[in-house]
Parts: sequence; C-alpha cells; structure tokens
Amino acid sequence: MDGTARTVNVGLIGLGTVGGGVARTVARHRDEYLAAYGIDLRITRACALEPERARELGFADEAFTSDWREVVGDPDIDIVVELIGGEHPATEIFEQALSAGKHVVSANKALLGRHVERLARLAADNGVQIRCEAAAGGGIPIVNALEHALVGNEILTVAGILNGTTNYILSRMTAEGLDFDEVLADAQRLGYAEADPSADVDGFDAASKVAILSSIAFHTRVTTDDVYCEGIRDVSAADIEQARSLGYAVKLLGIARNTPEGVDARVHPTMIPADHLLSSVNGAMNAVYVVGDAVGETMFYGAGAGSFPTASAVVGDVLALADAICHSDRPQAEIEPYRSVLPLRPVDDLVTRYYIRLTVADEVGALAPVVGVFARNGISISQINQLQDGDGTRCSVVFLTHEASERDVRTARAELAALPGVERVASVIRIEDVAAWTDGAEAND
Amino acid sequence: MDGTARTVNVGLIGLGTVGGGVARTVARHRDEYLAAYGIDLRITRACALEPERARELGFADEAFTSDWREVVGDPDIDIVVELIGGEHPATEIFEQALSAGKHVVSANKALLGRHVERLARLAADNGVQIRCEAAAGGGIPIVNALEHALVGNEILTVAGILNGTTNYILSRMTAEGLDFDEVLADAQRLGYAEADPSADVDGFDAASKVAILSSIAFHTRVTTDDVYCEGIRDVSAADIEQARSLGYAVKLLGIARNTPEGVDARVHPTMIPADHLLSSVNGAMNAVYVVGDAVGETMFYGAGAGSFPTASAVVGDVLALADAICHSDRPQAEIEPYRSVLPLRPVDDLVTRYYIRLTVADEVGALAPVVGVFARNGISISQINQLQDGDGTRCSVVFLTHEASERDVRTARAELAALPGVERVASVIRIEDVAAWTDGAEAND
Repeated sequence: MDGTARTVNVGLIGLGTVGGGVARTVARHRDEYLAAYGIDLRITRACALEPERARELGFADEAFTSDWREVVGDPDIDIVVELIGGEHPATEIFEQALSAGKHVVSANKALLGRHVERLARLAADNGVQIRCEAAAGGGIPIVNALEHALVGNEILTVAGILNGTTNYILSRMTAEGLDFDEVLADAQRLGYAEADPSADVDGFDAASKVAILSSIAFHTRVTTDDVYCEGIRDVSAADIEQARSLGYAVKLLGIARNTPEGVDARVHPTMIPADHLLSSVNGAMNAVYVVGDAVGETMFYGAGAGSFPTASAVVGDVLALADAICHSDRPQAEIEPYRSVLPLRPVDDLVTRYYIRLTVADEVGALAPVVGVFARNGISISQINQLQDGDGTRCSVVFLTHEASERDVRTARAELAALPGVERVASVIRIEDVAAWTDGAEAND
Repeated sequence: MDGTARTVNVGLIGLGTVGGGVARTVARHRDEYLAAYGIDLRITRACALEPERARELGFADEAFTSDWREVVGDPDIDIVVELIGGEHPATEIFEQALSAGKHVVSANKALLGRHVERLARLAADNGVQIRCEAAAGGGIPIVNALEHALVGNEILTVAGILNGTTNYILSRMTAEGLDFDEVLADAQRLGYAEADPSADVDGFDAASKVAILSSIAFHTRVTTDDVYCEGIRDVSAADIEQARSLGYAVKLLGIARNTPEGVDARVHPTMIPADHLLSSVNGAMNAVYVVGDAVGETMFYGAGAGSFPTASAVVGDVLALADAICHSDRPQAEIEPYRSVLPLRPVDDLVTRYYIRLTVADEVGALAPVVGVFARNGISISQINQLQDGDGTRCSVVFLTHEASERDVRTARAELAALPGVERVASVIRIEDVAAWTDGAEAND
C-alpha cells in the first residue's frame, strides 16, 4: 500500500439479482476498500433496462444508461462487469470492452462455457484480463484456488455439486421420500426452480460449469458441448431409497478427470458412498471436490447462487483487478489461452458400476431373458433386488453390475427395452468410483 | 506471460517431512512451471543438519549447507523457505532474510502465531512478503481465500477443525466407542500422534492457527496467547455417546468470531449438530468454515498436515512470489501490518449452552444440592439424564443448560466440585451456537 488512493472506475452492466448484490456490496464496503487497500472503487456507470432499478440501488441519474455501448465506450471505465447472462449481447460486450483495453468480470457461465477460448485470446491480445470466479460455484472461491493456491499441483479431478436447484430437489426427495415431479412443483412455487427448469434439471447449467472448471484446472479446451450431460428427471424416490439401503446417496455431480486416456467430463446423477463428504452437502448448497497430485483431496463448499454470494465472487475479482491497476502491474491474462489441447475421453469409454432398475412383468420366467441380455453384453451382475412395489402384474427389479463399460450398458439398455417382458428401463444410475478420483496423487507417508 | 523465462532462486531451510515434500514437488513439476508460467524455479540452496538427506532428495553437494546463514546471506536467493519450525533459529532466519530483501515462505505456526505482527512490519519495511498458507490448515488454501477471493466481504466467523491428530482421535472414539487414552496410545503407535502429544491434544497447535487465521480474517492482532485454549483429554466415550443421542457430534473446534463486543477466539471441545457439515469431517482431515457478510457460509476441506499436502501450500506461495518477481511487480506485504487492533472478548463473556457431566453419589438426595448450585448461579437447566454407568455407590448425571455465561458456569463448576455428594465434575463441554456464526450476514432473497 503506498498511502495514496487511486480511483478505479467500474461499469456495471445488468442490475438484476447479482448486479444488485454487487451494487449493494460495494456501497456497503467502499470505505473499507479505501482504508484497507487504498482503492477508491466507484461504479460510475450502471446499465439496466429501467432507470427505476438504478435509482433503487442508489445510483445517481447521470450514472444510469440503458445502452451497454455507453459503458464499454466510456474512456474512464477501467473494468466492465457483465451480469446480463446469455450469449447476446454479452458476447458483443466482451468483445468491445476487451478491444477497448478494459478488463471484464463476468458470471456468464453459458457464454464462457462455450466461447472462453476465443475471448481469452482476445483479452490476452489486448493485455487485459477476463475474470469469472462467479461463473462456477457462485460464491465459492474455486477458480481462485485452481489458478493460484493450488498452482503447484497437477490437478487430477474436479468433481462436485455445481447446481443448487437439483441438489435442493434431490435433498428433499431424499429427506421426504417424494418423487421428482412433486418436489419440482414445490421448488418452483418457492422460487428454488425456474418456471422452465430445463437448464437446471437437465444438467446444462452444471455442464457449463464443468467446462469452465476443467478448462482452468487442466489448462486445456473443454467446452459445454464436450461435456456428456444427463439430468435428474428419471431419478425416482424408489431409486433414492434403494441407494440408501445400499449405502449410497444420489447426487447430480459434474465430474472432470484428467486421465491418461484423455479428459473425462460429464454431468449425470451419481450414486456415491453415503459417508463421502459430498453426500452431506444438502439443500441448495454447492460443493466442489478438487484432487491435486500434491495436496490430495480438498473440498470447497458454499452457496452456488444468490444475490450476495455471487456478488462476493464478482467483487473479489473486481478488487483483484483494481489492486493490479492501482499498483501499475502488467495486466496478465487470468484465463490463459490454452497451453495444450488434451484429447477428450468419450463417455462410451467410461468403466464403472451401474444401478439399473427395470419395470418387468411379475411372472415366472420374466427375468431369464433379462439376465441373458446382461450376459450377452459381457455385463456381470453383483446383486438383484426385487422391490416391493408390484401390483401383481408388474414389479420393479434392481440390478447392480460389477464394473462394465458405458458402451456395453448402452447396448444392453436398448436390448432390455425391447424385451417383451420388460415394460420400461426405469433408471440407469452410475455408481461413481470415487476412489479413482485420487489416481495419480502422491502417496503420503 | 512474456515468453522469456526468468530464473527464481529459492533457498530451502529444513529438509524434514514438509521440506522433502517441497523438494520433490518442485522436482516433479519444474518443467511444467517453466512451460506454463515462464518461471524457472530452482532450489539452489538446501539446508539441513545432514548432507545425506539433501543427497537423498536429489540436491547436488554444492547446494547443501548445514548453516542457515549461508542461505539467507546468499545474494542470488530470491525466496527463503523456512521449514524448520520452532522459535529459534526460525526468528533469526525471518529477520535476516527479510532485512536482506528476501521474501519468506513458512509453515511455522508457532512462530507466526506469536510474532507475525512484528515480522510483518519488518517485511513491509523491506518491501518484501511473508507468505504462510501452509501454517494454518496445511494444504487447504484458506489463507489465499481470506486474503484474495473473499476480500470483498467482511469476515464474520472462521471456525473449524484445525488439528488432524485430535480429529483422528475423536473420530475413532466416536466410531469405536473407545476412551481417549486407548485411542491416543493407538494413534501414537500408528504415527498419528507424537510421543509427547501435548501440542495437539491440549489444543495449542489449533490455537496458533486460530491466531493466524483471525489476524488475517479480521485485519487485527490476535496472538496465540489471546486464544482461550482447552484440549480433549477430558472428553470420554460416555460424553460422545450422550452427544450422539442428543443429536450432536463432539469436535475440537478453533473458533474466531468478529462480534460487536470484540474478537471471540477460542479452542475447545464442542458439541455441534450432527447434521452440520463439520460433523461429517472425520479422520485426520481438517476443515475451516468461513462466514462472510456477502458470501454467507463457506467451508474449505483438506489435509491439514502431511508431506505433500503441506508442500502444495508452500509451493503455491513460492510460485505466487516467483510470478511477481518475474513480472517485476512491486512486492506487496501479503500479511498486512494490522490496520486496526480490535478488542478481544474475554471467554468469560461467552454465552452458550453447556453439557455438564458429574459423577455423584448414587443416593437419594444427592441431586438436590447440585440443582441448588445451578439455581444460585442463575443457570437454567433444560435436561437431566442419569447414565446407566453406576456401580451402586456412584453414577454419572448429565445436565444440559439453557444459555448461560461462561463466568457463571465457571463459578458453578467450582461450587459443584466442592459438594460432598459430587465425586467429580467429569466434563463440561460447550454446545456451540452455530447459527450465531452467520450473525451479520446479508439476508439472501
């Protein structure tokens, strides 16, 4: 700290939930940033559709604009904070701000999950930074940990609960024995789920975050389209109860592993041991497991969404940039242009154990062809449980497999669905081999 | 990254468990640091008592010295890594290295817990940094989170499991129903506890970490001597079993809260709700709960000790300094000289609920004077359980209190011990009000 305060001007585009949190957090702590870090942080432009919202957040009328071009075109602005989400005009905001030599802070996981590589190059070419702590894990400082504190490690695995809505739904299904549709309706009524819940419940939101986190962790290009993605609509109360009795919890996990065969990146419902720390993460909270070759297993837990938690991440990024600006450090690309492009491992090459629940005709001999399908596809069964949910004509049967390949299970699943005695392949849930997450870590003795 | 590598020379003092991990981690990843960050990181001096250890770690004979003065006096060294622990000569290493304009990275919690203020001023006066990620929480990147990612927040609470040995002992006592002495002996045999276990089991190690973390989190001076400290020797299997039946887990927590009445900093056995995430942290693992006014509740989990996890933190600090050196940034004091000295709240002012177990004479009327002591001290009792451990002449009785002040409980405890019918006040365990940890956080709606 050199005793003289420098003013850093911020342009805030988007005054919704997160933008409002940022405005309020900065207003609350501005004096402290000045006293502690010598940074006079000012939000000099605030962009939203309606001036009322800017007034409500305490902005002077001359700070307000409804045109983002006025923000990125303002020569006094040092840092542009993009919090409108979506691809357009967010892409144009990024492009014009970076080209104008302004740093960009953003929580836009949809955009960054798809286009971070191109935008990061543009930032590097212009000697400015993109920072996106809020784009994955909300308030959890996971990007900072991967880029800074854990930088001495080779990161082996990043895996976790990256979507609060689905974790809220699964937690309530588990605690109350309810089915998906019931809890979803309630979550929508309570504001935990959107009217169109697809981005959350079909796993797309988590997939964007897996793309961002694995790109950063493994220094390679992973986009949202590279992430295998499956949501929680097919998970039933019966599956969760079966999981419980087998010693597992059901969680929607985003998993990214840097394996010798390539990057394994996927989002799907997962059974994990009930005593694994991720199983204890309930409600709308998020948690990210990170395994590094030196540090071993770590976990980062916090609110993955919400006005103030997300604002915490955005403001942390803004202050880091402001600190560098105040001390005339060279701007350094925080999201580095990828130094390698690792191969991606197709999900078909996944080898794990599976939980498969079938609805079958409740008659003698119905199971024989089912067992035949598994055998023909080289899938070895470790356990078969008939559930007490039959009505005399049909019932559910659960099969647990030994390790099998996704490819074989996919083929078997299609063949099972075509069998006359099988009404439905009700659910196929992967039992994650959490012990494999530490493959490649140093032994500690 | 500017394309040209710069050499950063490190002097490593101490080649024990952590020093060895640092040497091996740097050797394993040196090429990667060069490729990714343009940093040619070299450990050019390695100091230990015996040259064999340096050879075993792959150092050339000319790098070895048994005299730390040769390391801090070497004009080519940019960063001194102090990993010998203890107060002397660690203090002199810090002083001479900082005065010579070298950055210091250290895992020395005993030293930093007592003298960080003076050393931080010396660093600032010489324009260099002290970094100590490894001193609290081992491999967990908690210092980095407090100093950087969460910097937009006012930190309200830092609380957690900061000592692996005691968490290992309590976890095994809980899982196996064993008493402290039995598990301690086993832990010593297995290498989880030292021959002299006092620093761990009496809470001193955790107290040092509370001092370091609360100093950083609250930007104030808290030294180890300011932290109220009580260990786990008095926790019995009976207490843990009672806690379980009441819905609690027993953990040795380090707790630091920034309250309106002052900083509340303490280490003691604690009952916390069994469904709190900290209750699921078992074995030798550590976890730190951090509550910020914007981010709300977060938790950071990982190995608190061990060769490679601790090395991860040390190397992260070294690389951060190396990056700044390579890019000619101004050196900035990472541990800032304290910008305020907040008052400390005496532990006597603590108000919480208490679990109190007495061994009493098993006879009619023995409880009446006990109840009288509580009443006389204004302590309201919410529950009394007589345990089934009596032998006909004595038995255990558990009292749960409503909220009471530590001061009153202390007086009552002395009076209880003096009662003729009371053989022993076997244990007094605070039931932590974990809901109060979020007092002052922004409401999220």
